[in-house]
Amino acid sequence: MMEQKLAELKERLSEVNDLNMAGAVLGWDQQTHMPPGGAAARGRQMATLGRLSHEKFTDARVGQLLDDLQAYGESLPYDSDDASLIRVVRQQYERLIKVPSSLLSQITTHASESYQVWAEARPANDFAKTRPYLEKTLDYSRQMADCFPGYDHIADPLIDFSDQGMKATDIQRVFGELRQQLVPLVQAIAEREPIDNSCLHQPYPEAEQLAFGTAVATAFGYDFQRGRQDKTHHPFAIKFSIGDVRITTRVDENNLADCLFSTLHEAGHGMYEQGISLALEQTTLNSGTSAGVHESQSRLWENVVGRSRGMWGHYYPQLQAAFPTQLGSVPLDTFHRAINKVQPSLIRTEADEVTYNLHVMIRFDLELALLEGKLAIKDLPEAWHARYQSDLGLHAPSDVNGVLQDVHWYGGLIGGAFQGYTLGNILSGLFYDQALQAHPTIPDEIGQGQFGTLHNWLIENIYQHGSKLTANELIERVTGGPLRIEPYMAYLRGKFGDLYQL
Amino acid sequence: MMEQKLAELKERLSEVNDLNMAGAVLGWDQQTHMPPGGAAARGRQMATLGRLSHEKFTDARVGQLLDDLQAYGESLPYDSDDASLIRVVRQQYERLIKVPSSLLSQITTHASESYQVWAEARPANDFAKTRPYLEKTLDYSRQMADCFPGYDHIADPLIDFSDQGMKATDIQRVFGELRQQLVPLVQAIAEREPIDNSCLHQPYPEAEQLAFGTAVATAFGYDFQRGRQDKTHHPFAIKFSIGDVRITTRVDENNLADCLFSTLHEAGHGMYEQGISLALEQTTLNSGTSAGVHESQSRLWENVVGRSRGMWGHYYPQLQAAFPTQLGSVPLDTFHRAINKVQPSLIRTEADEVTYNLHVMIRFDLELALLEGKLAIKDLPEAWHARYQSDLGLHAPSDVNGVLQDVHWYGGLIGGAFQGYTLGNILSGLFYDQALQAHPTIPDEIGQGQFGTLHNWLIENIYQHGSKLTANELIERVTGGPLRIEPYMAYLRGKFGDLYQL
Repeated sequence: MMEQKLAELKERLSEVNDLNMAGAVLGWDQQTHMPPGGAAARGRQMATLGRLSHEKFTDARVGQLLDDLQAYGESLPYDSDDASLIRVVRQQYERLIKVPSSLLSQITTHASESYQVWAEARPANDFAKTRPYLEKTLDYSRQMADCFPGYDHIADPLIDFSDQGMKATDIQRVFGELRQQLVPLVQAIAEREPIDNSCLHQPYPEAEQLAFGTAVATAFGYDFQRGRQDKTHHPFAIKFSIGDVRITTRVDENNLADCLFSTLHEAGHGMYEQGISLALEQTTLNSGTSAGVHESQSRLWENVVGRSRGMWGHYYPQLQAAFPTQLGSVPLDTFHRAINKVQPSLIRTEADEVTYNLHVMIRFDLELALLEGKLAIKDLPEAWHARYQSDLGLHAPSDVNGVLQDVHWYGGLIGGAFQGYTLGNILSGLFYDQALQAHPTIPDEIGQGQFGTLHNWLIENIYQHGSKLTANELIERVTGGPLRIEPYMAYLRGKFGDLYQL
Repeated sequence: MMEQKLAELKERLSEVNDLNMAGAVLGWDQQTHMPPGGAAARGRQMATLGRLSHEKFTDARVGQLLDDLQAYGESLPYDSDDASLIRVVRQQYERLIKVPSSLLSQITTHASESYQVWAEARPANDFAKTRPYLEKTLDYSRQMADCFPGYDHIADPLIDFSDQGMKATDIQRVFGELRQQLVPLVQAIAEREPIDNSCLHQPYPEAEQLAFGTAVATAFGYDFQRGRQDKTHHPFAIKFSIGDVRITTRVDENNLADCLFSTLHEAGHGMYEQGISLALEQTTLNSGTSAGVHESQSRLWENVVGRSRGMWGHYYPQLQAAFPTQLGSVPLDTFHRAINKVQPSLIRTEADEVTYNLHVMIRFDLELALLEGKLAIKDLPEAWHARYQSDLGLHAPSDVNGVLQDVHWYGGLIGGAFQGYTLGNILSGLFYDQALQAHPTIPDEIGQGQFGTLHNWLIENIYQHGSKLTANELIERVTGGPLRIEPYMAYLRGKFGDLYQL
C-alpha cells in the first residue's frame, strides 16, 4: 500500500521534473543559440512550462500522498533515498503551497517589468527610474516572507529558498567573524608591492583559450560525454538530467583569465550535478542541495585547485606550449602570482579571492537593513557608496558600478540572493580541508595533474547525495561540526601570505 | 459569450502549442547538440510533453467549447481566422479522440521498439529480424484506420493524418497518370549520353560550402534573424514559433550538391513556416497545411528555382569565386547539367528530380497492397525488388538498399508516409506555374538573383494561411481547379528536354 503511494508520488514528481528540465533546455537555448526572432514566444513557452510544473507539484493529491507517507518515511533510515524523498519533498511542498498563487504571479510579472527597467536604467546610470520598482520589490519581498510566519528574522524565509536552514543571524555572525579577519588581510596586502598581471592581458586567440579550458575541465573530471560547453554573455551551468549537465563560458581575447577560470568555475558546478546518484534521477532530489554548497564546488575547483601553485606546476608548461609567444618567457611564478593578484575593485564578479567576500557581505547587510526597515530604497545608493568606502576604500564614480551593478534585486526578490556566494567560499575551504585530512596525498596528486582522489572524495561525501541532506546536515556529516570559517581563513592566509610575503 | 468561449479555446490551444513547441526544442537539441549521456532522459522528457499536450488537446472541455462554438464559427466568413480555427481544430480534435489512448500508447511503444530493431537490422541486412515487427505495425495500422469507420479505402484515414482530404484512389489515379508519362521520359533520357557530374565530386571545404548555402538561402528569403542552421545526420526543418524556424544540413566534403541542395530544400520548408501570418501564432493553425504542400515549397526552392539555368546564370560566378580551384575552369553549362543529372538509382533520397517520383510511387503502391491484404510482409522484399526492376531497371544487391532503406515503416505506421513527397513535386510545378501566370517577370528576376516577387506571391497565396485551408482547398483557390499534373510534367519535359536534347 505504501509502495503504491510512493510509486504514485514518484510518478508525479517525475512529470514535474520533466517539465522543469524541459524549461531548462528552453532557457539554455534562449541564451546560447536562439535567433532574435524567437524571444517573444520563448518567454511564453517557458512561463507555460513553469506554470504547469508548479500546478502539478502543488496539486492537493501530492499533499495527500505526503501525508499518507509521512509515518512510513519516518520509519525508514533518515538518509535512505525514500525517506529523504518524502521528507525533502514535503518541505518543498509546504514552502510552495504557503505562497498564494496570486502573489506568485504578481511577483513574476513585477520581476519581469523590473528587469526591463533595470536593463535600460543601468547603462543610463538612472537609479531614480528603478526606485519605484525596487520599492515594490521590497514590499513583495516582505509579503513573501510573511507567508512564513514564525520566522526569527524577516530574511529567513527568503534565505531558505536558496540556502535552506541557514538563518540570517547565524550568517551575520559567521560573516562578521570573516569580515573581521579579511579586512586586515586586505590592508596588509595593500601595503605590499602590487602584483603585475600584465602577462594575462595579451592577445590570446579564442580557439586556443577554449581548447585549454576544456582540457583542464576534463582533467578535473567534468565529463563531456554527459555535458558540453557553449558561449554565452554570462557563464552558467545548467542541468537537463544527470547525464546532460552543460556549462557555458565567455572569451575575452585580451584576458586569458576570463574564459579559463569561468570554465573551471562552471565545471565545478557541473561536476556536482554530474556526480549525483543515478538513483535520484527523475526525483526532485536530483540537484545540488543549496546555493552555498553549489558555490563551494565551483569555487573549490576554480580557486582552491585551479589557482593553486601545485596545479600550475603541472599545467603551466602545457599552457606555455599553447601560447608560446605570449607566455614562453614568462616564469611560472609570475603567472601564478598574476592569476592571484589581490586588488580592491568596484565589481563583484571581477573581484579576487580575498576581496570577493567583502562585496558579498555589503550586499547581504544592505538586504537585511532594507528588509528590517532600517534602510529605505531611496537611501540605498548612498549606503552602497559608504560601505564600499569603508570596506574597500573605493567610491564608484556612478551607480552603474554601484547599486545598479548586479541584476539580482531587479529580477527577483530582495533577500536571499547573495549569501550563497560567501557561504560557498567558506565551504570550499572547509570541505577541501576535510578531503586533505582523509587523503593527505591530494596536493601531491594535483601537482601531477591527477584529480581523481579529490573528485571521488567529493562525489562520495557531497555530490552523490543531491539534495537529500540540507547544507547544515551535510556540513555536520562531512566535518563532524557546524559551519566554521577557520579552514577557509587558514587557506587564504597560507596562500596569500606566501604570495605577498606577509 | 461566444467571444469568451473562443478566448478560452484559444487559451487552451496556446498551452497545447507551448507544449508542442517545447517538445520541438527538445527534439532539435537531441539531434544537434545533445551529448550522448542525455539520451535516456531526453526520450522520457519528450514523451511527457507529448502526453501532456495530447491530454490537454483531447480534454472534454475542448470538445464542449467546439460544440458551443460550431454555429458561431459557421456564421463567420469561411476563411476568417476564427472560423478556420473552430473548423480545423474540430477536425483535429475529432481525429484524435477517435483513437483510444490505449491503442495510441501501444503504437508509440511498438514504434520505438521497432525503430530499435530496424537500426540494428539494417546494417546487418537482416530483414527477417524486422518481419514480426512490421507485421505488428501493419496490424496496428489497420486498427488505426478502423478507428475511422466509413472510409472508402483503408489507407484513407492514414493518409488523412499527413495529407488531410486526399483519398487513396485519387492519389492512385494521379500517380498512375504521372507514372505513365515519367517512365518514357526516364527511358528517353537513358538513351542519351550520360551527363558527367564529376565537377561536383572534388574536395570542397566545409566552411565555404556552408557559407555559400546560407548566402543563397538568405537571398531566397529565409530569414536568419528568425532562424538558424545547424548540422545533423539527416537534414530537417523545425519550428518553435513563427519567429524561430530552424533548418539543418549536412556536409560531404567530396560532394558539393549535398549541403547546397539540402540547405535550399530545408530553407523552402523554413520559408513556408516563417511566412505564416502572425495572427495564427499560438493557435494550432500555425504550421503548414499538409505534407504535400510543405514538400511543394521545399522542392520548389530546391529544384524549380535552385537547379534552374536562370538562377545559376547569376550565382555561378559567385560559386566559382568561392571555389576557384575546383570550378574556375568548369563552364556554367557543365555545372548546370551536373546538378541535373538523371540516373536511375536504388536510393530515394539521392534520386534526381525525374526518377525520384518513381521511388515514391513504389512505396505508395506497396503500402496500399499491404493494407489491402494483397501483399504479405514476408513477400515485401521480393515485391520491392520486382518493382525496382520494372520501374527503374535496377536490382538492389541486398535489402539494405531495398526494403530496409527508409525508416518510415519502422518507426510509425504503414500507410500515409510517402505520398506527400510526390504530391509535393506535382504541386511545386502547379504553384510555380500559377506564380508565373501572375508575374511573368519571375524568371527574369531569378536570372538577376532577385526572388522577392516569387517569395511574396507564395507568402500571399500559400504561406500566410498556415493550416487554415486544406491542401485541396488551397489548390482550388490558387489554381481555380483540382490537383493536376500537367504543369509539373511540362516543367520536367521542358527542362530535361533541353538538357538531354530530347
